[in-house]
Amino acid sequence: MPFVLPRLYAITDARLSGLSHAEQVLRLAGGGARLIQLREKHRDAREFFREAEAAFEEARRAGVPLIINDRVDIALALGADGVHLGQDDLPPEAARRILGERAVIGYSTHNLEQAVAAARLPIDYLAIGPIFQTSSKDNSDPVIGLDSLRRVREAVPDLPLVAIGGITPQNAQETLAAGADSLAVISALLAEPAEIEAHTRAWSARF
Amino acid sequence: MPFVLPRLYAITDARLSGLSHAEQVLRLAGGGARLIQLREKHRDAREFFREAEAAFEEARRAGVPLIINDRVDIALALGADGVHLGQDDLPPEAARRILGERAVIGYSTHNLEQAVAAARLPIDYLAIGPIFQTSSKDNSDPVIGLDSLRRVREAVPDLPLVAIGGITPQNAQETLAAGADSLAVISALLAEPAEIEAHTRAWSARF
Repeated sequence: MPFVLPRLYAITDARLSGLSHAEQVLRLAGGGARLIQLREKHRDAREFFREAEAAFEEARRAGVPLIINDRVDIALALGADGVHLGQDDLPPEAARRILGERAVIGYSTHNLEQAVAAARLPIDYLAIGPIFQTSSKDNSDPVIGLDSLRRVREAVPDLPLVAIGGITPQNAQETLAAGADSLAVISALLAEPAEIEAHTRAWSARF
Repeated sequence: MPFVLPRLYAITDARLSGLSHAEQVLRLAGGGARLIQLREKHRDAREFFREAEAAFEEARRAGVPLIINDRVDIALALGADGVHLGQDDLPPEAARRILGERAVIGYSTHNLEQAVAAARLPIDYLAIGPIFQTSSKDNSDPVIGLDSLRRVREAVPDLPLVAIGGITPQNAQETLAAGADSLAVISALLAEPAEIEAHTRAWSARF
């Protein structure tokens, strides 16, 4: 069975939300998120593992698949549903070797060339961005815009495509129209911690 | 079969030596090293993986077991002989779960309390230090000295013990006498890149 991405791809951010990953998962799942990626770029592996353990319990309880950013070993130790890898992380081939066929492997790309190269890798979906200006990632790559998204969609017709970077309720529709199967959202869900559930519910209902 | 540590435990350092991990493995193995840990704290996971791949080939060719610092996923993807974990890395229990019984798992401790706690973990050896002043590790923990090494040896009689931190040909004998089974050496082997093989040979012959 091929991996089917939900329209909304929620990603945690402990700095932005000021919440533990477990609490973010609880609120995102409460709002109807059907896939969550745990992303942690500031803590060490031990801390991330402990946080991910707690978050995984919440995700299991809610029946929401959980994907771990970068650390394939943490995903494996938890039995998480998959990993999301960036250009500087473990190569997808190596991750596939140790995770097996059933795990979901996603891969970040930032331009057409990377996306075309990625289409040959053993991955389940491709992330492309930043589509728009964004403040939630450190050292962000250059904004590529909707035209580039369309070109990636044409060049890579068969892989599920997640658009990421600066996606808001205002530009979500045109991003889907440009060829994204799924929208990765951080700030628009997490920037107001008290509203995470409400914002997630609104997104889930609308797209 | 319990894991038997050689007297000399060589650890790579790409900054100190100015050499790739593969080249360091080549020279250390050429000098008679019988166990090598790849340690890389400055590169990203992709770069470390590529370097470790090449180093692992050299180690295999030389018949020298290779242990990967921190990244359990890299060790697993390569089929390396084991991992070495610090207090901030993946917990040893989690690493054991995904590596299985045959992999070697080593664990860094920096005082008696940590060493005693570590004796309950599913590990194959314990590292303790820094025993002496050292310049080869960033953000080093406080120097513990030979008396602390003796106390750790008494408190943890059954685990193979690797002494680390500032170990030189001058203090090696007293470090072994204080209870170390093995001496972890970085600077004394690598600080003069042209002499790595000769220094390793001298160490291997002497201890």
